[in-house]
Amino acid sequence: MESELYRLFYPRGIAIVGASKNPSKIGHIVLKNILDGGYKGRVYPVNPTAESVLGLPCYPSVSSINGEVDVVIVSVPADKTIEVAEDAGRAGAQFLVVLSSGFKEVGNKELEERLVQVARKNGMRVLGPNIFGYVYTPAKLNASFGPPNLLPGNIAFITQSGALGIALMGYSIVEEIGVSSVVSVGNKADIDDADLLSFFLNDPNTQAVIMYIEGISDGRKFLDIASEFSARKPIITIKAGRTEFGAKAAASHTGSLSSGPILWEGVLRQVGALQVKDVQTAFDYARIFERNIKLPGPNVLVITNGGGAGVQATDTLAERGIRLNEPPKDYVDYLRTFLPPFASTRNPVDITGGASDEYYYLALRKALEHEEIHSILVLYCQTMTTNPMKTAEAIIKAVQETDIKKPVVAGFVGGPESKEAISYLYRAGIPAYPTPERAAEALSAIYLYSKRRSVVEARLAYLKTLYGKSQRLVETRIIGEK
Amino acid sequence: MESELYRLFYPRGIAIVGASKNPSKIGHIVLKNILDGGYKGRVYPVNPTAESVLGLPCYPSVSSINGEVDVVIVSVPADKTIEVAEDAGRAGAQFLVVLSSGFKEVGNKELEERLVQVARKNGMRVLGPNIFGYVYTPAKLNASFGPPNLLPGNIAFITQSGALGIALMGYSIVEEIGVSSVVSVGNKADIDDADLLSFFLNDPNTQAVIMYIEGISDGRKFLDIASEFSARKPIITIKAGRTEFGAKAAASHTGSLSSGPILWEGVLRQVGALQVKDVQTAFDYARIFERNIKLPGPNVLVITNGGGAGVQATDTLAERGIRLNEPPKDYVDYLRTFLPPFASTRNPVDITGGASDEYYYLALRKALEHEEIHSILVLYCQTMTTNPMKTAEAIIKAVQETDIKKPVVAGFVGGPESKEAISYLYRAGIPAYPTPERAAEALSAIYLYSKRRSVVEARLAYLKTLYGKSQRLVETRIIGEK
Repeated sequence: MESELYRLFYPRGIAIVGASKNPSKIGHIVLKNILDGGYKGRVYPVNPTAESVLGLPCYPSVSSINGEVDVVIVSVPADKTIEVAEDAGRAGAQFLVVLSSGFKEVGNKELEERLVQVARKNGMRVLGPNIFGYVYTPAKLNASFGPPNLLPGNIAFITQSGALGIALMGYSIVEEIGVSSVVSVGNKADIDDADLLSFFLNDPNTQAVIMYIEGISDGRKFLDIASEFSARKPIITIKAGRTEFGAKAAASHTGSLSSGPILWEGVLRQVGALQVKDVQTAFDYARIFERNIKLPGPNVLVITNGGGAGVQATDTLAERGIRLNEPPKDYVDYLRTFLPPFASTRNPVDITGGASDEYYYLALRKALEHEEIHSILVLYCQTMTTNPMKTAEAIIKAVQETDIKKPVVAGFVGGPESKEAISYLYRAGIPAYPTPERAAEALSAIYLYSKRRSVVEARLAYLKTLYGKSQRLVETRIIGEK
Repeated sequence: MESELYRLFYPRGIAIVGASKNPSKIGHIVLKNILDGGYKGRVYPVNPTAESVLGLPCYPSVSSINGEVDVVIVSVPADKTIEVAEDAGRAGAQFLVVLSSGFKEVGNKELEERLVQVARKNGMRVLGPNIFGYVYTPAKLNASFGPPNLLPGNIAFITQSGALGIALMGYSIVEEIGVSSVVSVGNKADIDDADLLSFFLNDPNTQAVIMYIEGISDGRKFLDIASEFSARKPIITIKAGRTEFGAKAAASHTGSLSSGPILWEGVLRQVGALQVKDVQTAFDYARIFERNIKLPGPNVLVITNGGGAGVQATDTLAERGIRLNEPPKDYVDYLRTFLPPFASTRNPVDITGGASDEYYYLALRKALEHEEIHSILVLYCQTMTTNPMKTAEAIIKAVQETDIKKPVVAGFVGGPESKEAISYLYRAGIPAYPTPERAAEALSAIYLYSKRRSVVEARLAYLKTLYGKSQRLVETRIIGEK
């Protein structure tokens, strides 16, 4: 069955009401982003006072457009939005994307409710209001006033914060995180996090979702779908307002009433969501989940050319419940055939500071092939006698030649050359980080998700047995459980 | 009184024993780094089989050098080092910097002890063995085989790990952290962390020290000087082997026997040291402590153009014990004279997504001048209608015009332009970070250090009263205290 939101992400035609010739106006930036992004559908600027904008002829209204319009982007003052909704309804549009502010966030709840009523009566769903738009890279669609040059990828990002959301779009470019989608949900007058999770659950272009959440209105609906989602793909949540003070700040920001932070933590954990405290970690996790590699088992092997990096990674893993076991005996024997005698063949395996790329290649290749090694953390400290790019190549070669699907995560510490090698590894499908601790923490996220997914799967199976398929999958009593 | 280590950092002449023509040899790289770094003293390659290296005439031995030699760098096989030590002693050298490995770290404890004996008998102190050398930027001295192009600054970095230490030298370039010194301590056969802290304590070129520690042999000596140090300048410690598993990894790496992680945490806290778990945070803290700004009081003001960034910062601060109070009434009144009505004048102050640079300037300037505001966190989310560089300029202008010494920390979230603005701010003396949480955590470090310093100062004063000046300043019973 086609998702209810299908045409939001794959519209045949888009109208932009409030399209403007003025380059500093939102109605201009959004139109420009849509055109520059390479979107293949039809684009209709709507502006009764202009003849053309950005080379396209203008229409006086949505209903005067002669062609299929699935999405209507609304960038007009709040008090004009009802009129636009009625007009868009007449034109047979399916979605109103309301960028305008001046609704619930400033106390104008009534107008917001009326807008949704009018839209619903005309068979339309509303995204927003008070948003910066949305992006869907598989359709080359950037219907936002955020940055134009996002990297395509398979992470979807749902954000309740506007300015921070836009800024993080920019930061994703710096961090080279590829996205399938960015959706600004703003006041969530109609389409909410749960609706979007439903779409991304079945979206083959999305492997994981990052959510910046300040508050959720329909908790039950969210928990239902979040459970189902987590059983298949990871949700990484940044829950703002974790502390009493943060919750107060969030309330004065969006008017969202955040329930107690501790309650939230428990609830998110139970539906299988990963919780991070900061945007840096959210991005670090996203990088890990770009490829949906199944974890074959518990044994992590750390390979390093620097003892210190190995110790830091060991501490980081241990604090997240992952204990390094000694490597299998035959693996150690193999290492002994080529490593210098003062190398350590315990776990972390220290292939020594003078380690050649060949050592990395051999040690990693054998580890990938070994049945009792289930994931590998490869650490590299840049020295004057080794070359980060060559080390990266050795790692990629081992992974590609064996074609065995185990998580391999890299931590490359060093100067600008290491930074380049990190990008290179990442483009080759190997998540890589500039410090041993960030690499270790990212690897630990795979284990954490794997554990949470099993629990969620088991609970879903249990509930199905109890109530049959049609029953809501998460019990209300989940709230309040320890 | 001149520090005992003065001539290590300001040598009149340096001999490099094992200087080599082969560019891949350590004895070549170190010599090249010394020459390229711009060191103004005399440099003498020692190599009995070469006539010249890198354009300098070679000497057959240290004692054959006709000129003052304060430091002798030793890069010869371990079993030749005793001979070198005797020769260096005859030449009147003060310091042996032994890069060579093959000592205690491979079980050869006896040779290491003999080396120190010979050195001491000849009036020399030993740095190392098993190290990558050291750097002191005020003397333009890079006597290491790490990267050549470190940025000068006032952070000293003492590292027990070799490969990780060298790699972090490189990373400091990427992160634009300026260093006064990097010292590889390796096996610490003689000169140890405490000796180095004694030097940096009175070094006007050093504002803070980062220490990567796996183990410490003379705990009492370290704690004495660390207390004294913390009372004047911050120590940022990365204590490797925090967990049982990490401690095991550290033991197999350097042979250091790490005491229990919990014991360490308590001890480091009591001497006033800041403890971080990862190298990223160590660098983030270093950036904060580059300028030794005294904290005038507890009240943090957050200024932001994005509610979400403000909430994230509020949570981060609250989790570190810093609670945001409402801004002073007259400050709010002032904000109301220029901010749009929907802006929030609580704390965080949300100057709105469309905030002009002028808003930042006015809000920050007044906050700097206000007696009841003691530190300011300025957050900026990059949007399509604002310019990160102009915002940075507005911030710098406010700080420079008021010339009031309060901590100002910036968090700039966004794309490549924000990244540039972060560098720009940092070069202007304002620590800046790419996420709101990292900025908030860094600011919290100033508060944490200020608190710890007060406690340490009070304890030192108390002990002086009890025992008089000559008494050791930290009691043995500190170990084991809660």
